[in-house]
Amino acid sequence: MRLPERVLSTVMPPIDALNNRMAELAAEGQDVISLGQSVPFFGPPVEMIAAVSEALSLDPRIHSYGPDAGIPELRQALAEKLKRHNGVDADPATQIMVTPGSNQAFMVAMLTLLEPGDEVAIAAPYYFNHHMAIELCGGRVVEAPTSEEDGFQLHLSDVEAATTDRTRAIVITSPNNPTGAVYDRAEVERIARFAADRRIQLVSDEAYEFFGYDGVSTFSPGSIPDLGDTVITLGSLSKTFGMTGWRIGYMVAGEEFCRQALKVQDATAICAPIISQIGAVVALGVIDAFTEGHLAELEARRDLLERTLTSIPSLDWTKTNGALFAFVKAAPTASGRELAWEVLDRTNMLMVPGSAFGDAWRNFVRISYGSSTRDRFEEALNRLAVYFNGSGGAGVR
Amino acid sequence: MRLPERVLSTVMPPIDALNNRMAELAAEGQDVISLGQSVPFFGPPVEMIAAVSEALSLDPRIHSYGPDAGIPELRQALAEKLKRHNGVDADPATQIMVTPGSNQAFMVAMLTLLEPGDEVAIAAPYYFNHHMAIELCGGRVVEAPTSEEDGFQLHLSDVEAATTDRTRAIVITSPNNPTGAVYDRAEVERIARFAADRRIQLVSDEAYEFFGYDGVSTFSPGSIPDLGDTVITLGSLSKTFGMTGWRIGYMVAGEEFCRQALKVQDATAICAPIISQIGAVVALGVIDAFTEGHLAELEARRDLLERTLTSIPSLDWTKTNGALFAFVKAAPTASGRELAWEVLDRTNMLMVPGSAFGDAWRNFVRISYGSSTRDRFEEALNRLAVYFNGSGGAGVR
Repeated sequence: MRLPERVLSTVMPPIDALNNRMAELAAEGQDVISLGQSVPFFGPPVEMIAAVSEALSLDPRIHSYGPDAGIPELRQALAEKLKRHNGVDADPATQIMVTPGSNQAFMVAMLTLLEPGDEVAIAAPYYFNHHMAIELCGGRVVEAPTSEEDGFQLHLSDVEAATTDRTRAIVITSPNNPTGAVYDRAEVERIARFAADRRIQLVSDEAYEFFGYDGVSTFSPGSIPDLGDTVITLGSLSKTFGMTGWRIGYMVAGEEFCRQALKVQDATAICAPIISQIGAVVALGVIDAFTEGHLAELEARRDLLERTLTSIPSLDWTKTNGALFAFVKAAPTASGRELAWEVLDRTNMLMVPGSAFGDAWRNFVRISYGSSTRDRFEEALNRLAVYFNGSGGAGVR
Repeated sequence: MRLPERVLSTVMPPIDALNNRMAELAAEGQDVISLGQSVPFFGPPVEMIAAVSEALSLDPRIHSYGPDAGIPELRQALAEKLKRHNGVDADPATQIMVTPGSNQAFMVAMLTLLEPGDEVAIAAPYYFNHHMAIELCGGRVVEAPTSEEDGFQLHLSDVEAATTDRTRAIVITSPNNPTGAVYDRAEVERIARFAADRRIQLVSDEAYEFFGYDGVSTFSPGSIPDLGDTVITLGSLSKTFGMTGWRIGYMVAGEEFCRQALKVQDATAICAPIISQIGAVVALGVIDAFTEGHLAELEARRDLLERTLTSIPSLDWTKTNGALFAFVKAAPTASGRELAWEVLDRTNMLMVPGSAFGDAWRNFVRISYGSSTRDRFEEALNRLAVYFNGSGGAGVR
């Protein structure tokens, strides 16, 4: 079978393989803990579950297709949320498209935007699915590397250096996956103006927007006026509401871009699952109380993780203040991939090799502090300390 | 904004615009009936609703990502269904991928398969989303036209004539959307062997597999042994179980094709919605009793529609025995598009213009007899007769 080189050369992230191995270990009776996939420790709001239960028996709409762009009440709820939380003005009728997850929104945006050979500048380390989607659409990834020395902040100069005549989009993810960096507002503004001046689309992936610590909050470049529809905002309900399995995200863009992207949506998902859309409306209605409840817990875990990592000489973390991740450097000659597999085999804990986020990050691992219970998380920290130091971590347990 | 020509030139099917107009009419208090979108008159099995309700309160898995290819129990249930109903042997671990609808499975298959400029031969009239997906992936559609004179049957000779050195796939949809034709088994076998000989992928879209009348049943070319993994079978739970809004379909293909397609899935949906997957397992468990219950009703409707159409001199239908559709010819100079809009405005009923399924079918309309209640369907037939003949239809009401 002859398949396109762009497909064959696309590398599957290692998470599935590690997850499968973890599942095997669990099946053997091992006491496994995942610090791997980005799944928060909480499930969706009880109000959402109640509303979905009710819809199951009372709302026959859930069984049929809805409008391609999303059910009107969800687009309306998103427009209100965007206005209030992000300062983004979006017409729910023409500028918001609900997708089965923000990951799919990114693919739809790339399919809508790219010609073969077009370039996309992305901050590195990058979210691996961004890399995959660009390549699978025939685009070329150009990395704008950030550095652990200044907390993985993205600078306009890095973006400029990664931009050529073929650049069709700049992708920023803040709070960042995998680094947890929340980009400086003034720098994001500069990058947005740079993109607009060159009529390059700025794709802002804000999946982790509600996870900012130390009082830091995410800035949405879609809120900057007069950028002439160059910003495409991607959002997700998955992390905010602990509903990754429900597949609800969205794209906000100019009217013309949305009109064209809707063709891709129609030829792909048709529409996002209706039962999930109905749940999402209710979840958005309780967003403030719901998100507040988790921030303190996540910030406390991050600080516990910092204490443990500080106690381990062979691991080095430049602490960041967003998302659910620590992007941790092992010794310069270490392989994050070998480390992840060895940690899994020796301690029954899953972490993600840094190479998944770009070739330059081979000696890093990503540790998620968002999943499992606090108890389990503390147990994980203990195992980390024992594995690396041969004894329990400072101040944990 | 500069967007790719392949996106700009892709035409959105007219269903959304017609649906929007119908919604406006309904909001004005008009008594509207849709003979348009392909949504069956029934909802999912009660057993599925009960299982989903239970999972909502008891199964925390529904909130998190599952394996990219689908939860193991759904892949297992699909493997059993494929074996029993389709004669298709598929390893659930490596050859079945659950997708958010079979429409998305088609897009994933095209993204996995096509290089820009590659050709795909499709039986015409065609399902418009197939056409869109091929174009959006940079492919070129080559039509293998069928003809109403022999009931829209597809012949190997038609397929051969549409095949060149650039052909990467042949797409067949049986039972067909929009014609309702169920392709002759021997001819499908010939087409499958032709494709295999030339190492062209045969994509068999079987979304309407359970809707065959007059004792006719669908043949799955994936059941033919020794074709060397050239058949890609696409299936859907949407129509079979009246669950179009739940977004569950699947792809069955060779191990290597699935491995590559999984990259596209990972970079797009990640996984299909878990709550829908859990429901799908239960639905598949009651498939025989559930589908049997609807066939007689749909066959009766088709026969009622035939009587009405026979009574209308200006409409001509070559009766077919599958799916939920009549593909009806108006006078040769008539425009199906104008007809659809006029019927909507004058009778508050929606049908789909034939041009949506290919330029050659401008003077056709697609009438779905699958949706709404029997009562409402009979009312629709009455309106059709009154609109075209100026009086009620023969034998209806």
